[in-house]
Parts: sequence; C-alpha cells; structure tokens
Amino acid sequence: MLTQFRFDLHATDGAARLGIVHTAHGPMDTPAFMPVGTAGTVKAMLPQSVAATGAQTILGNTYHLMLRPGAERIGRLGGLHEFMQWKGPILTDSGGFQVMSLAKLRKMTEEGVAFQSHIDGSKHLLTPERSMQIQHLLDADITMAFDECTPFPATPEQAAQSMRLSMRWAKRSKDAFVERPGYGLFGIVQGGIYQDLRQESANALQGIGFDGYAVGGLAVGEGQELMFSTLDFTTPLLPTDRPRYLMGVGKPSDIVGAVLRGIDMFDCVMPTRSGRTAQGFTRRGTVNLRNARHQDDPRPLDEHCACPACRQYSRAYLHHLIRSEEILGPMLLTWHNIQFYQDVMKGLRQAIGEGRVQDFARDFLATEALGDIEPI
Amino acid sequence: MLTQFRFDLHATDGAARLGIVHTAHGPMDTPAFMPVGTAGTVKAMLPQSVAATGAQTILGNTYHLMLRPGAERIGRLGGLHEFMQWKGPILTDSGGFQVMSLAKLRKMTEEGVAFQSHIDGSKHLLTPERSMQIQHLLDADITMAFDECTPFPATPEQAAQSMRLSMRWAKRSKDAFVERPGYGLFGIVQGGIYQDLRQESANALQGIGFDGYAVGGLAVGEGQELMFSTLDFTTPLLPTDRPRYLMGVGKPSDIVGAVLRGIDMFDCVMPTRSGRTAQGFTRRGTVNLRNARHQDDPRPLDEHCACPACRQYSRAYLHHLIRSEEILGPMLLTWHNIQFYQDVMKGLRQAIGEGRVQDFARDFLATEALGDIEPI
Repeated sequence: MLTQFRFDLHATDGAARLGIVHTAHGPMDTPAFMPVGTAGTVKAMLPQSVAATGAQTILGNTYHLMLRPGAERIGRLGGLHEFMQWKGPILTDSGGFQVMSLAKLRKMTEEGVAFQSHIDGSKHLLTPERSMQIQHLLDADITMAFDECTPFPATPEQAAQSMRLSMRWAKRSKDAFVERPGYGLFGIVQGGIYQDLRQESANALQGIGFDGYAVGGLAVGEGQELMFSTLDFTTPLLPTDRPRYLMGVGKPSDIVGAVLRGIDMFDCVMPTRSGRTAQGFTRRGTVNLRNARHQDDPRPLDEHCACPACRQYSRAYLHHLIRSEEILGPMLLTWHNIQFYQDVMKGLRQAIGEGRVQDFARDFLATEALGDIEPI
Repeated sequence: MLTQFRFDLHATDGAARLGIVHTAHGPMDTPAFMPVGTAGTVKAMLPQSVAATGAQTILGNTYHLMLRPGAERIGRLGGLHEFMQWKGPILTDSGGFQVMSLAKLRKMTEEGVAFQSHIDGSKHLLTPERSMQIQHLLDADITMAFDECTPFPATPEQAAQSMRLSMRWAKRSKDAFVERPGYGLFGIVQGGIYQDLRQESANALQGIGFDGYAVGGLAVGEGQELMFSTLDFTTPLLPTDRPRYLMGVGKPSDIVGAVLRGIDMFDCVMPTRSGRTAQGFTRRGTVNLRNARHQDDPRPLDEHCACPACRQYSRAYLHHLIRSEEILGPMLLTWHNIQFYQDVMKGLRQAIGEGRVQDFARDFLATEALGDIEPI
C-alpha cells in the first residue's frame, strides 16, 4: 500500500508543534533539520553517516543538479535517491533562489529566468514548469514551488510585485506538478517583512492548495529580531494541518526561536559549511578549532556529543587535522556539526512532547551564552 | 602477558612467504600492504574504515609528524595510536627519506641532517638518536633505522659511500633504540643496484641484529625490471626468520612480483594519492573516473569489490563527485583503492598458503592487462 503524503500533528506546546511528515521514502519527525546535499552529496559525509546522526531528510539543489550532472541524467540513473544512495526523503528547492545568487547574465520575465551556468556558461531557462519537471526527474519527495526570493531590504511596492509574481508562478507550479502517492508540493509564502503582503500571499497559496507551506524571503540579511517578528505574524496565517518550513535557517538559536513560533522544518548549509571552515558547534556556542589554544587539549570538542569526532578524538587532533589541511578535518567536523543540529532537534521534539519547550529554549540559550569551556 | 615482537613463518611457496608479524598492538598477516598515514591520518579515511578494508598496520611519517604537530606533543597526548585512534600496529619511517626530498637548506654530515622545515622554515637536526627518540615518542610498533636513501642513479662509489654511512647510522640507531616487548627495530639494506654492496650492507645489518630487514633505495626511478633483479639477489641475503619490508612499493604488479621474490611488507602512497586524483584501481587496471565516458555508466567501478564505493555507487556518481570537486569523491575512491590493495594481499596470502602463488600472479597480471571493461 502506497504511503500518502501527509502531516500528523501529535502535540503542541504553545505555538511549537510535534509531528511527523510521511513521504514516499519514509517519515520525518518534526521539528526537523534537513542537512543540505547541494550537488548530490552532503559535503564530506557518507550518506549512512548522515543517517546515523538521526537526520531523516536531506535537501538537494535544483540549480546545481540541473547544471551538473543534469536532471535528465539523474532521471535515467534512477533518480537522486538511487544516484547518491540516500534512502530517506529528499526535499529539493525550486532553483529560484540560487539562480538569482549564482547564475550569470540572468534575465527575469513573467515566463521565468533565463541565465547562463556559472560552471560552463551554458544557457538555460528556468520556469515553474521546468522546475517541476526537474524536481520530478530528481524524484524529490517534497517539491518546492518555483518562486522569486524577495531581496532584503525591499520597499512595500517591490515586495508586493515580487510576491505576486511568485504567486502566479505558484499556480503554474501546482498545475505542472505531477501528483504521486507520498510526494508533496509546497508553496512558499513571500511578502518580505510586511504583514499585509504575507497575509495576501498565504491566502493566495491556500487558495491554490499545497501539501505544505514554506516561509521564504527570510534569513537574507534582515537579522534574527526581524525574522522572528515576521514569523510572529506569518505562521498564524498558515493552516495547522500542513507542515511549515522556514527555508535556509539557520543558526541554532534561530531554529529554537522559530520552533517556538510554530515552524516544523529547517535547512541550512551552516553545519556543513562550518565543518569545512574549522567551526564546531557546541552546547556552549561555536568553537574555532584552528585556534592554537586547542593544540595540546586532550578533551573532546563537546563532551556531551555522541558523534565519532567527539567520542574518539581530542581537540588537539582536530586542530592538527585543520592546520595540516587534512580531509579528515572537514569530515569529522561536518559529522559533529550535523550531529549537533540533530541533537538540538531531538531535544526540541522531546521538550514539545513533554510540554516544556519554553524551558528547553531558555536553558539552551543560556548555555550557549556561556561560551566555550576554559582552556586547560 | 606482553607480546614479544616476532615473525612466524607459516608457509613458503617458492620464495614467497606466508607469515604473521606479532607486535604490541596486534598481529599483521604477511604479505601485508600498509596504508600510509603521513600526518597522523590516512588521507580522507576514518581509521575504522581503513581497518574495515582488512588493513592491520599503517605507516606514519617521522618527518611530517616531528614538524607538525611535533613528536613531544604527540607523546604528551598518549602517542600516535591514541592521537589518531588507530588501534593496530603502526610502523614509522625514520625521516631520512623525506628530509632529503622535502626539507629546505639541508646539510648532511656524519652526525645527521640539519634542515629547515618546509612548513615554517624552523630549524631542525635529525640524527639516528633523534629519529629513535621521535619514533619512541610516537610509540611506533615498528621503528625504522635512520638511513640515507641512496639516489638513483648512483655510481658504485657513491652507492658504497652512502650505504656505509647508513650502516654507521644503523649501529647508532640500534644503540639508541629503547627495547620494549612487542616493539621492533628494522634495519635497512642499501647499496643501490650493486650486488656486492647489498651483500656488504646485509652482512653489516645482521652483524648489528635487527627485528626485521627492509630493502631501501628501490622504487626511486630505477623501473620494475631493475627493482626485481635487485630483489632477486638481495632477499636471499636476508635471514628467513625476520620479516622483509620493501619500502615505498608500489604498483599492484610491483607488489605481486616482489612477493614472488620473498618480500613480506609494503607501503606506498599510491592507493591513497590516486584516490585524490580520480584514479581507481580495478582487477583490469587503473581507471580514470574523470573521463566523460563514465558519466552515464550505472555500473560499479569494480564489480568484484566489496568496498562501499563499489557496493553502493555507480561510475556515473563517482564521475559526478570528481567533476564537482566534492570531498566524497576522494573519500570513496581512497576507500576503494585501499580495499583493492588489501584484496590483492589477501589473494596473495591465500595463494601462498595453497601453493599456487605463481598461478595467482600469472592470472593477476593477465587480468590487469585486459584493460577496463567496455563502455556501455
């Protein structure tokens, strides 16, 4: 019997929600953090190691994959799950965000975005219809509607114009999306920091009807305070029986704050990218392992962490790997950072289930503010 | 009860030998290939993944480790096994080879080699006594005597002068080596391609007395034919009750040929380095996975291989990772290459035990000569 795409809401604690998204490739417990696997790999990680952290869903990038190795090629090879050997759910973005940030010689029209590849200069056209086709070829469990990420800052007029284009593209995305059991399509609420525009966008999307709703256009430089205040009036606009996804967020404290405001799903390159730049997340904030103060430190990066980097290795060794530019450095730090993010999500889920998410959040932020342990 | 360092010879097949080297950190079945962990990591590999290939011993480089992070530091942190979390035996080289190939402003005297670090220009002196001290701090199960690797080509006079210096250094190494149960010291036979010099060197070393004997000064550009002919007259000079180690070798066919000539131990950067340059070893020769002919190929790199890269992934995916410069590319290819080398060694050991090593070698070389499978 085929799984239907659905969201089960199991508990709430204030605005925070505990639930499960069911997909063709299995369940995702929410609130969930989805590691980013941009080009068909969560960088520096074996997929079984990603799964071992507790991560259930990963994200793939339509823009990168359409350019290299190509969506049709991945389709011929059996889809992205088979290609990269990720057994769980995959969410793909629409390509809309990255085509604007990475591609060259972009030209945006009502039809879509014409651009040249940043890799080889080849010409492409990305439209709502093509984005749906690509995500179908990739076999994404969760497909994102094609949209324009409204820049920040934007005037109300700019934000409105951009949002309304995204709403027309959302309708075209829905029309082009091929429905299959266990596969879902998410709409993306735009409207910048303007409540009336967010309301208009949320209404428009619910009129079309989606399997989940993302909040787009945040984490683009507006800062945590403005992000939270925008969430404060945006999440109540979304239906309670569908998952809510805050795209591209974020720092651990961003995620904790957004969960308190009713968000269920997150993705961000921060844990993986930080793992390649010597930054380790700990319960007492981030630690730069390149710093010479770690060179004789036999202690683990985070004594509370169960990842291989923390179970097995000293800070001195991680520091040595980074200074020596050894590949094992990014491998271990990325693993740790993904584990850390998954542990935060697990803690949030447990706290929501037990009705103590406010306490959890307060303790988390207080501990994070302590700063790293004293050097030995 | 403490393990004594010893070599048990279990079977011979012509000159080829099947045995076990027992060390403080466990046994090593021979013939053995020891992956190189230059700077305290087998590049791009978790140590448990290295062990999963069947590798029992890895090699550490005295030159690299003395410069960064420093031998005294590793000693304070519990030795190299603890530092890098390698549970099995570790062999360290003496630093003699790399100080001549990597260091700057070298000055060689009877005392040793004064040099500047290629990393930060710091000044160092490497002598037989200091090399023994460093390898002791690293806690190497197998310590190599400090020697000069005679360059190729060298005149008989140059080779004799270099070899005799190495023999004086071998005596000083033996005198400075701290004996402990389960820890062994190997002498290194030099003498270039000259039989009388190899004889003189082998005699000198056996007069001093070592736990194993290495053949040095090969794989330095002389070619396989000259290497084999040198082994033909050198290995018979070595005692049968001690392991024999051919340093820095080599290609799979080099190893197969050297095992036929009585060598027990090997190390080489080839499988790891090739893993970072898109070269995959297969039973039908090496394959360059950067080549576009792999881009749509759903088949594994080597269908006979049990490593994760071959069990899980297509050539198309490996090709994509390499083209995209994803870290997972070197991770998977290195794993495969080490597995391939270990599989060759396992095949050699089984064949020796069954008295069919000549057949094994002939089949291996014939299959390797076939070249890669046809593109689909």
